[in-house]
Amino acid sequence: MAQQGVLTPQNEDFPRWYQDVVAKAELADNGPVRGTMVIRPYGYSIWEHIQSEIDQRIKAAGAQNAYFPLFIPESYLSREAEHVEGFSPELAVVTHAGGEQLTEPVVVRPTSETVIGEFMAKWVQSHRDLPLLLNQWANVVRWEMRPRMFLRTSEFLWQEGHTAHATFEDAAAYARQIHHDVYNDFIQNVLGVQVYLGIKSTSERFAGATNTMTCEGMMGDGKALQMATSHELGQNFAKAFDIKFQDESGTSAYCYTTSWGASTRLIGGLIMAHGDDNGLVVPPRLAPIQVVVLPVRDDEAVNAAVDRVGDQLKVAGIRVTTDRGRGSFGRRVTDWEIKGVPIRLEVGPRDLAEGLVTLARRDSGEKVQVRLEDVASATTNMLEEMQTAILAASRHRLSSRTADVTSVAEAAEAATAGFARLPWDLVRGEGETQLRTQAITVRCLQRADGSMPDHENEANLTCIVAKSY
Amino acid sequence: MAQQGVLTPQNEDFPRWYQDVVAKAELADNGPVRGTMVIRPYGYSIWEHIQSEIDQRIKAAGAQNAYFPLFIPESYLSREAEHVEGFSPELAVVTHAGGEQLTEPVVVRPTSETVIGEFMAKWVQSHRDLPLLLNQWANVVRWEMRPRMFLRTSEFLWQEGHTAHATFEDAAAYARQIHHDVYNDFIQNVLGVQVYLGIKSTSERFAGATNTMTCEGMMGDGKALQMATSHELGQNFAKAFDIKFQDESGTSAYCYTTSWGASTRLIGGLIMAHGDDNGLVVPPRLAPIQVVVLPVRDDEAVNAAVDRVGDQLKVAGIRVTTDRGRGSFGRRVTDWEIKGVPIRLEVGPRDLAEGLVTLARRDSGEKVQVRLEDVASATTNMLEEMQTAILAASRHRLSSRTADVTSVAEAAEAATAGFARLPWDLVRGEGETQLRTQAITVRCLQRADGSMPDHENEANLTCIVAKSY
Repeated sequence: MAQQGVLTPQNEDFPRWYQDVVAKAELADNGPVRGTMVIRPYGYSIWEHIQSEIDQRIKAAGAQNAYFPLFIPESYLSREAEHVEGFSPELAVVTHAGGEQLTEPVVVRPTSETVIGEFMAKWVQSHRDLPLLLNQWANVVRWEMRPRMFLRTSEFLWQEGHTAHATFEDAAAYARQIHHDVYNDFIQNVLGVQVYLGIKSTSERFAGATNTMTCEGMMGDGKALQMATSHELGQNFAKAFDIKFQDESGTSAYCYTTSWGASTRLIGGLIMAHGDDNGLVVPPRLAPIQVVVLPVRDDEAVNAAVDRVGDQLKVAGIRVTTDRGRGSFGRRVTDWEIKGVPIRLEVGPRDLAEGLVTLARRDSGEKVQVRLEDVASATTNMLEEMQTAILAASRHRLSSRTADVTSVAEAAEAATAGFARLPWDLVRGEGETQLRTQAITVRCLQRADGSMPDHENEANLTCIVAKSY
Repeated sequence: MAQQGVLTPQNEDFPRWYQDVVAKAELADNGPVRGTMVIRPYGYSIWEHIQSEIDQRIKAAGAQNAYFPLFIPESYLSREAEHVEGFSPELAVVTHAGGEQLTEPVVVRPTSETVIGEFMAKWVQSHRDLPLLLNQWANVVRWEMRPRMFLRTSEFLWQEGHTAHATFEDAAAYARQIHHDVYNDFIQNVLGVQVYLGIKSTSERFAGATNTMTCEGMMGDGKALQMATSHELGQNFAKAFDIKFQDESGTSAYCYTTSWGASTRLIGGLIMAHGDDNGLVVPPRLAPIQVVVLPVRDDEAVNAAVDRVGDQLKVAGIRVTTDRGRGSFGRRVTDWEIKGVPIRLEVGPRDLAEGLVTLARRDSGEKVQVRLEDVASATTNMLEEMQTAILAASRHRLSSRTADVTSVAEAAEAATAGFARLPWDLVRGEGETQLRTQAITVRCLQRADGSMPDHENEANLTCIVAKSY
């Protein structure tokens, strides 16, 4: 049904296909300042659904939203040595404001550990103030030399959580809770992407962290995408910003802090994890529009049925829209396919004469005729089946395209088509450097059973290596 | 019941009282960079409710959310002469990024007419693309020389709507729809503030607008606060950014655009419109916490009743929290009063023995005993009564402290204690200049019947003048 040639085919040029989808699905445009992006209404409505799902989970984990300033004194960054080293090359600096040169330049936040650390120090006095669990939804700026829409933009939108705890164990447990119950739960059950959960190697850690946990998904071209990260910051920022508390005995001690974030990059992941040559495929639970009702012809009986069907779906709690728009039927089909709407519900005069309408499922292309009176239940079922099928496909891709190998050379070979898994002891140090020359990085470390290690120095770890976005 | 001396009394020093409330209700802290602000969790939860209420209304008016970049090329600002003149003194400028000096400095958006204008020009081709109705939730920066928390901060959060239309009439009607159905409806029916709706005089207009409509509220000290504005931009930005469309006959014409915004300043309005010497008073429909349940004593029967009551209120759809916290009962009462929670529900052993609990209403101080089985309905009724009473009090203040006067001298006198209303013909030109020397400004112009004029040059207009925030 879809028109040919609207999008570059994936196997011809995957990056070009990606750009085509971003443009043709009306997700985003390039901004006028290098590396910035305009998120268009359809792209933003996907982001609103991502936000809402993640925000619910963050609140369920007990964190509260707050808002910290965009501008950070340059001197704050320097207080944590690794942090400033990691972020300096990416900073945007305001030197003039209010018509004058500033005495101290301010940086546009690349992330907010420093400024939030300053306020944690103010707010935390006693063990009774802990844990302090904060989150903010904000824009951040990291100047990008090689920008790519949603994946690497000079400005992006995200949430960043920041917490302070009395003990190492409490901080570690909370960072893991966020990683599992917020990120992995959302990514798997809503975004429909199966990921590897693991920890980063030292060289891939967040600047200033003692441990970084990651969700690594596999995109359609076999490359990895880091979809969300949670960091244990140890006492690094607590010492830099003097975040101290008095314990029950009255002794003063530094807190342990964590931070964790997920961004508009998830939309890039959505596109590349599920998209096909006809465009985006949005999992039903995430989709701003779950069903589009399309009249095959502009005629009275059809129009009446379109209204009735739309109402039935709304009552059933389905996010539905009706497209009586201009353009041919075929053109509209193509447009909604590019936008990845899970189900297209076609209402035509011939079907209608038999009391039927047609449901077309976006991921499989499957078309079924259903009786008008069954439309709500059939649609609900199809949406659930599609959600399940999308995750199953993602899971299949991840396992079938992860090769277990036994040498760095084999890993490099396997990483041309997917992920490679091998003993960490074969890679650490020398091997990691060698792989990096071929643009292959260690995506994460895992235990042999696939679970997340506590730290890099556990025995018998495996590592997943891949090319990545 | 409340402890004395926690807040500076309003009549002793209103600005100091305001600062005390912001600090003691844990709404916000000063940020490290001059004029910036940290919005603390309780303050931010109020903002989330404001956002949700306004966002629903914006969507109901047909506008779609999108996101445009923080950074705007400096040259964009200059394209509309009045716009650049108005905003230049407040701009923050990024001159360095990614470790290099930028060839063209970029400004941090003070508002987004320019960058959105650029994209409207790209997206609008034909009359079928109109109206184009966009909104964004974002942070903006306007460098403040005399910052004041929530009211004037160098960075603030807001929504800014931007629309393009085929005709002057359509643009004018939409700007008015937003003004009435989004802003005034929210401010009156949720925030509980009665405002004057009117248009700004030429000298008080948004830089680049042909007409600015405003909602002017009266604060507790009789000063005015501009709570939201909607602008008709005529073809000014359309010409500057080449926003053109082809009409049905194929003729090319410039669009008419509008913009409209409301910000975290509304929280300042909330504080000053309803607050009293015991702190904030949050209208029930807006309140993140509508009822706080306080056990008078830590005992088994009391604790069981507290749980039961909490559950009953939740089931009734009331936003309730229970405070079994540390600190004395009296201290907790004071703290929740400062936070302005509409109803305090006290559960004590003596009341309980008779099957009763006590409801204390934040605005009036009224306390009533209700039977345990009636607690949900009694609370629901009290919340509704309080919402009505708050608006009635605001309405009473606005009318009783607006003096109808017949000269500029009388207006200046009246503006020391409230608003003054007088014929616009007495003020325009000379009078406006003279009043400004006494820090009194024209807040808005109205028709004699209080309705909103189409433009400044209608005959027989009245004007409202006042000191303002």
